Amino acid sequence: MSKTITAPVSGMRDFLPIEALRRRYAVAIVEDVYQSYGFEPLETPVMERLETLLGKYGEEGDRLIFRVMKRGRKLQRTLQEAGGENDLADAGLRYDLTVPLARVAAEYHGRLPRFLKRYQIQQVYRADRPARGRFREFYQCDLDVTGSKSLLVEAEILSAAAAVLARLGFPAGDFQIRLNHRRVLSALLQSAGVAPALEETALVAIDKIDKVGRSGVGRELKERGVSERCAETLLRWMDETPEEIESVMEWLLSLFQSVPEAVSAVQDLRQIVTLCADGPVQGALKIDPYLARGLGYYTGAIFEVAFPDVPGSAGGGGRYDNLIGMFSGREVPACGFSLGLERILILLEERDLFPQNLAGRPELLVTLFDEAAMKHSLALCRTLRGEGFRVDLYPENDSYGKQFKYAEQRSIRYALLLGPEELEREVVTVKDLQTGQQLALRSGELAEELRSRLR
Amino acid sequence: MSKTITAPVSGMRDFLPIEALRRRYAVAIVEDVYQSYGFEPLETPVMERLETLLGKYGEEGDRLIFRVMKRGRKLQRTLQEAGGENDLADAGLRYDLTVPLARVAAEYHGRLPRFLKRYQIQQVYRADRPARGRFREFYQCDLDVTGSKSLLVEAEILSAAAAVLARLGFPAGDFQIRLNHRRVLSALLQSAGVAPALEETALVAIDKIDKVGRSGVGRELKERGVSERCAETLLRWMDETPEEIESVMEWLLSLFQSVPEAVSAVQDLRQIVTLCADGPVQGALKIDPYLARGLGYYTGAIFEVAFPDVPGSAGGGGRYDNLIGMFSGREVPACGFSLGLERILILLEERDLFPQNLAGRPELLVTLFDEAAMKHSLALCRTLRGEGFRVDLYPENDSYGKQFKYAEQRSIRYALLLGPEELEREVVTVKDLQTGQQLALRSGELAEELRSRLR
Repeated sequence: MSKTITAPVSGMRDFLPIEALRRRYAVAIVEDVYQSYGFEPLETPVMERLETLLGKYGEEGDRLIFRVMKRGRKLQRTLQEAGGENDLADAGLRYDLTVPLARVAAEYHGRLPRFLKRYQIQQVYRADRPARGRFREFYQCDLDVTGSKSLLVEAEILSAAAAVLARLGFPAGDFQIRLNHRRVLSALLQSAGVAPALEETALVAIDKIDKVGRSGVGRELKERGVSERCAETLLRWMDETPEEIESVMEWLLSLFQSVPEAVSAVQDLRQIVTLCADGPVQGALKIDPYLARGLGYYTGAIFEVAFPDVPGSAGGGGRYDNLIGMFSGREVPACGFSLGLERILILLEERDLFPQNLAGRPELLVTLFDEAAMKHSLALCRTLRGEGFRVDLYPENDSYGKQFKYAEQRSIRYALLLGPEELEREVVTVKDLQTGQQLALRSGELAEELRSRLR
Repeated sequence: MSKTITAPVSGMRDFLPIEALRRRYAVAIVEDVYQSYGFEPLETPVMERLETLLGKYGEEGDRLIFRVMKRGRKLQRTLQEAGGENDLADAGLRYDLTVPLARVAAEYHGRLPRFLKRYQIQQVYRADRPARGRFREFYQCDLDVTGSKSLLVEAEILSAAAAVLARLGFPAGDFQIRLNHRRVLSALLQSAGVAPALEETALVAIDKIDKVGRSGVGRELKERGVSERCAETLLRWMDETPEEIESVMEWLLSLFQSVPEAVSAVQDLRQIVTLCADGPVQGALKIDPYLARGLGYYTGAIFEVAFPDVPGSAGGGGRYDNLIGMFSGREVPACGFSLGLERILILLEERDLFPQNLAGRPELLVTLFDEAAMKHSLALCRTLRGEGFRVDLYPENDSYGKQFKYAEQRSIRYALLLGPEELEREVVTVKDLQTGQQLALRSGELAEELRSRLR
């Protein structure tokens, strides 16, 4: 028997019990809140046709898709014909959850309700260079509504996002929800004199503000061909932008007086703000006219969850009314939000927001005195499991010391002893492994005592 | 915009909301029961190193592994060198959950408790020809204990398996748990005169009994080189084998008097049967000396869950004391069970065992009277979500008829109406879309009335 490499493949992770349970804890809350907003789950396969994926995520995206090889004769034929990268593969791994949603919305159109309100919590795959906090397999938690252009959709989605964070224990004020509108961004660039052809590249520069700061954005803009004057106008506006939500909307309206499309965009923002009033978003909402979120496909509202003391975002989304049409051949409006689960999990850990007693961990260890006591230990397990406890049974005839050590390895606080003395006296000894305290209890009082200690 | 192929890739499935929720319902019960037995979850990446996977599942298995292509320069180099199938790939998709467990047990040995009791519910991938009931992506629900040779492990695993089926609603008597021992199988073949070299191939023949029947097994045995006389002895024994659990053990002992290894195997079976007494397995247990379960790696007990009126198995497992050593370089005993989730889901459907009101579906639709009523509808949603209801909000200003139709598409029974009349009277109208009945309720009584109707 020789030792082989047993680490997970590069950029991917094994989740051992505690990590797996912590992820379950967070995901259960996300699911519960999403469901309370009337959303239902969707699951799609890990593989998609290569042509479904290619061309949806830009050139960089195409490079980062994990490709699954053709098999058997098909592969042999391609190899003989000395095909290229894309000829050898006929599928790729899920890269995000939006393209699968668009595919599903097109495929099952007749079977789906008029508005599809779906959430999807699955892994996505990117053949990116692994780095701290950057994985090749990671979860996305997406929430989308297709079929409606109503701004109630934006309000409900923002509200669900804020409700999830509140339920996870992040206090109000800990996070911001930044809101912008694609047409506000366009109007800003246009009003500053940036040529329409440079809009896309200028947005990429502006998107970097959190990373490179105001002067960095200025440099980037010039490098990307935006004139000195236009860049300076944009930077001056950044300085002038008020903080307060009403003031920034007033400021935008005064700037865009002569751009009717931009005025209607600000009115949309105002409507969203109004609809969010009194809900879980209130207080967290902030208008950020420079929020771009990189993705070219947004057509309306754009939003992002940010923890001011943490770089990067903890989720984001927006309205994308043209994407689903790529698959269905007809226009289907849509708006969605993706929670950054991996970052949220790090924040829960850093802020100590995971519950002490993680649901799902074993609570009790029933020890084994000797072979003859097996059936008694088994019966005790049966009773306690019937009472709803999570009970481990020590399988071997070892010293109590070894058994207690195992309980500690598994973070089980209470060991139950059932030896000849206990059997004789018709009791079970409960040992608190933290305090060392022991207590002999009759079967009638056992469950209640344990419940009061554990719950 | 042109229509592209939007069906999922061959052999894989999209799970739309109801299907996804049904799967969640079953998986939640499986998890809950497994946890009540003291097991904790493990999750591993979808990809494994190719060398981790190859050679573990036989020749056929090697062919059925989905291979993930190398990327970038590594791929280019391989293509120039005109490499073969395995040179082009550097990873494969998870083929089962046992090899990942073995890898994890080896990798994190120092961090894991003395006995690793883990369950794992994840998809596995097989590039098999898709057929009815045979998928290329499907879930496995595995339960394993590593580190102990105690038969308590077998008893606990069998008990957990039976408890899952009971909790899912399958009545006692609906399913059997068939039990055998690898050494009983060997001893049967040996005692019938089959040469040790033919043991493996003879087991494959015997394994087919459920599919091809007694005479089919006879034919298969001869085709595989087992002599006429040996085959006939085996078939005669099949006819002679008693049904009742004690009798079959007696019969085996009388057959194996002179084979000490086999006698100890029967004693192991007897011990497992004794330890299962009074637990959820009782009544379902049956000794089947011809149960082989194909896999060569079993070393002790072998078991299988069968529904007598359904072909194939709904799960199975056994003891495999040598597999984990392939990765860790030291012997680690292990025993496990894998629930056939896909088949269980079909059985739940066929036997109508899914609950009427599937958890997670929206329960209420708050309608929208007009633009002006938006904030009132939103406030009503907020209140009801706060009370724990799953509430959808209709996003558009449509006729009530359209809104009710949407509710029906989503199987929501109760629509809540909040128009000018309701606002004036300070009530909410609850409309039962099944009966057409309407009821005006004050906000103080609304939640309670809805709860009594829904729960």
